[in-house]
Amino acid sequence: MSTTALPRQSTDFPGWYGEVVRRAGLAENSSVRGAMVIKPYGYAIWETIQRELDDRIKATGHENLYFPLLVPASVLAQESELVEGFAPEVAVVTEAGGNKLEEPLAVRPTSEALIWSTYARWMQSYRDLPLLYNQWTNVVRWELRPRLFLRTSEFLWHEGHTAHETHEEALAETLTILHDVYADTIERVLAIPVLRGRKSESERFPGAVDTYTLEALMRDGKALQVATSHYLGQGFARAFDVRYTGRDGSEQYPYATSWGATTRLVGSVVMTHGDDRGLRLPPRVAPQQVVIVPIFREDDRADVLEAATAIAEELRATAVRVRVDDRPEHRPGYKFNEWELKGVPLRIEIGGRDLAAGVVTVARRDTGDKQQIPVSHAAVAIDEMLTDVQASLFRSARDERERRTLRDPSGYDEMIEYLRGPAGFVAAPWCGRRECEAQVKDASSATMRCLPLTEPPAQSGACPCCGRSAVTAAVWAQAY
Amino acid sequence: MSTTALPRQSTDFPGWYGEVVRRAGLAENSSVRGAMVIKPYGYAIWETIQRELDDRIKATGHENLYFPLLVPASVLAQESELVEGFAPEVAVVTEAGGNKLEEPLAVRPTSEALIWSTYARWMQSYRDLPLLYNQWTNVVRWELRPRLFLRTSEFLWHEGHTAHETHEEALAETLTILHDVYADTIERVLAIPVLRGRKSESERFPGAVDTYTLEALMRDGKALQVATSHYLGQGFARAFDVRYTGRDGSEQYPYATSWGATTRLVGSVVMTHGDDRGLRLPPRVAPQQVVIVPIFREDDRADVLEAATAIAEELRATAVRVRVDDRPEHRPGYKFNEWELKGVPLRIEIGGRDLAAGVVTVARRDTGDKQQIPVSHAAVAIDEMLTDVQASLFRSARDERERRTLRDPSGYDEMIEYLRGPAGFVAAPWCGRRECEAQVKDASSATMRCLPLTEPPAQSGACPCCGRSAVTAAVWAQAY
Repeated sequence: MSTTALPRQSTDFPGWYGEVVRRAGLAENSSVRGAMVIKPYGYAIWETIQRELDDRIKATGHENLYFPLLVPASVLAQESELVEGFAPEVAVVTEAGGNKLEEPLAVRPTSEALIWSTYARWMQSYRDLPLLYNQWTNVVRWELRPRLFLRTSEFLWHEGHTAHETHEEALAETLTILHDVYADTIERVLAIPVLRGRKSESERFPGAVDTYTLEALMRDGKALQVATSHYLGQGFARAFDVRYTGRDGSEQYPYATSWGATTRLVGSVVMTHGDDRGLRLPPRVAPQQVVIVPIFREDDRADVLEAATAIAEELRATAVRVRVDDRPEHRPGYKFNEWELKGVPLRIEIGGRDLAAGVVTVARRDTGDKQQIPVSHAAVAIDEMLTDVQASLFRSARDERERRTLRDPSGYDEMIEYLRGPAGFVAAPWCGRRECEAQVKDASSATMRCLPLTEPPAQSGACPCCGRSAVTAAVWAQAY
Repeated sequence: MSTTALPRQSTDFPGWYGEVVRRAGLAENSSVRGAMVIKPYGYAIWETIQRELDDRIKATGHENLYFPLLVPASVLAQESELVEGFAPEVAVVTEAGGNKLEEPLAVRPTSEALIWSTYARWMQSYRDLPLLYNQWTNVVRWELRPRLFLRTSEFLWHEGHTAHETHEEALAETLTILHDVYADTIERVLAIPVLRGRKSESERFPGAVDTYTLEALMRDGKALQVATSHYLGQGFARAFDVRYTGRDGSEQYPYATSWGATTRLVGSVVMTHGDDRGLRLPPRVAPQQVVIVPIFREDDRADVLEAATAIAEELRATAVRVRVDDRPEHRPGYKFNEWELKGVPLRIEIGGRDLAAGVVTVARRDTGDKQQIPVSHAAVAIDEMLTDVQASLFRSARDERERRTLRDPSGYDEMIEYLRGPAGFVAAPWCGRRECEAQVKDASSATMRCLPLTEPPAQSGACPCCGRSAVTAAVWAQAY
């Protein structure tokens, strides 16, 4: 572990982020530009996110399957918005098995095209609907300005692709995924408060009728889109000529949805909760929830280590993820710093004098508070403290977001200045016209993050840009 | 579901295999030659295999991580045996983001090269060892003669890559993986008996000092290599110049292992247990362990469905994976055939008359036996029957393999004729010379599957090929 201090969030947030990701052992750059190596500590966080999402995806009636990595160029070209949207980012295989290929193969940037070209075979009658499928895969989108976890040329994700008889059913699916799968995981497990909204036309997924999004505010005042769920209408069904025989015997095009969440979520945990000492992990996603650091002299070494092991066993029995750090080559102070950097929610210090008194010291990573608890009461106390850390990180992130949200700016100038900061979200009335959206973006480089579904700010009033009457509320921010 | 009969195993095994895989909904071909779509029923089997392997990989001290898909050609070229071994199968990305790349990128056929080029950074001192890492990924190896699950241009797998201080420790790792991870999963969960052995020099993984393998016998008399574990010595460390400071302060090259198992395992379940009616799934890997088919007339419909649901709930409470097939559009006979094709281990039939008598009928997929059991005793009886089906499928596959293994053939001619059949395994003494290995292969197209570690056949006697004294026993077969 490097012993120099981290860059400070307030003066160099990008530098702080990069150093935390590297020093905490989450990920590092690889020899392929823009593609990262996800290291064991970072991957363990991703595995928890995967399991939590997968449980909810299955609980809402979906099954997993797997489609190929390589997509024939002609298949990708069949849906014009999709191919145009992704063309600048696609990696192309032109040789295989020692020969030049007759048709180039795209490394999937997303799988709508290949999946919809296959769904044609899986759908004859309304009885075959709905199709509710999901896959866990890697995708490649060539990145010119890569950032570990946030923008990488290859990333891991899941992508759901469903087909339904009616518009209403498909739209309900889109929102079930947004609320019950994504928002539930991100708020309850990652402790990240999300703004739920719909994208404006210019920010929609290529080929989508509507894109729903979850937007989170990072500690530098910039927004991160953490998951999206798309209502695709009948466009993909028409582009790939997918039809079925409906209940009345007539031929019908199904209604589609697609939705995804990526390894970017690991980055969102870092940037939502981290502080100048490093990560602060919510207990539900922390690979280690508790670390026990034994502090001993030569004469009480055996007793202290034995007590540390006994407490660890007791915690493990209640399903707490705990590690005893008994490395002989490092002193306690070094270990404290390392586990603080790695964001372990609770640290238990056990020393000989404490033991004699029947107590241990517990330090909270989120607040820095230390308290002594009786050894006899450790399992119950730790369980309560983990629950409290989880809730407290969420509350504090939500308060921070509220503090940084400017509602109903007094006018255009205040709005632009706030966005340029970047100071956080601006929630403002919007006239609904593309011109105003483009003007704010040109002036501030901020983008319209969403038209919020819940917690709407004031929807009346005038568009700060043009003065016309607002038709909706919109939320703006600088974005990753 | 198609209603025509399946091809028979005895007359058209390849036709039978392809039809079972397609009709049971395991997988199908995609629009990219040689790359398959793994359908939900097949993917659910793979997910169970993944979880079982992953639990054992972690229980033996390994952590998961993730390395990129694309490998710079120059990195792949750094280990000469590896690049030569895989050159004919590699797919190459030459364009990305709209531009021709300066250096082509190989789609990983395996990850030794990229991982060892990175391990150089992760290893300074002996204290950093061992590195015990694994990843779950897709790989691409261009296939000219693809077969669903068995040989596909893209497949899913996991690959472990470890580094150790000593030869002994690395070799022990190789064998721990072979026995405690692979053989344990494949025999206990997939109910497939495996022969454990070492490969001859000509069959080794490119760059390996020794390749250990598990070989299983399929019902057509051909062998399938189901998992391999490689002891790599110091070759990769030297090729990628990976050194660390040893306990005595001197610079050392670490010893390496790598090991993998793939989606091919799903094919091995089909070909080990399947019969002329379709799949026969071992309960531990079956997505549905029990299907309940209600059989009712108009007047007892509600009662029968209610009883079916009640039994399903009771079984679910004991963690049995159960489904009630209450589809109104199909008759019971149609459902029986479909679930037999899909290999569900137990079928419960519930009719009005049975209910009045307090019994249900249970049919075993493996033997076809039917018996009545009291409803009050259902949960216990089903649990016992599932355990028995699991054990019985393993026993029957092991007996079949023994019956089909020719030990100590009377001479060269008998050996070649048996192998040409293909009738099964031949276990014979071997002089250890490449010439004889090549001669048998030329004459029979069979390959030396392994030099068995356990259950060795007679090791004395003369090599049936050249008459020289044997130095070891070898097992031969036609192979997938």
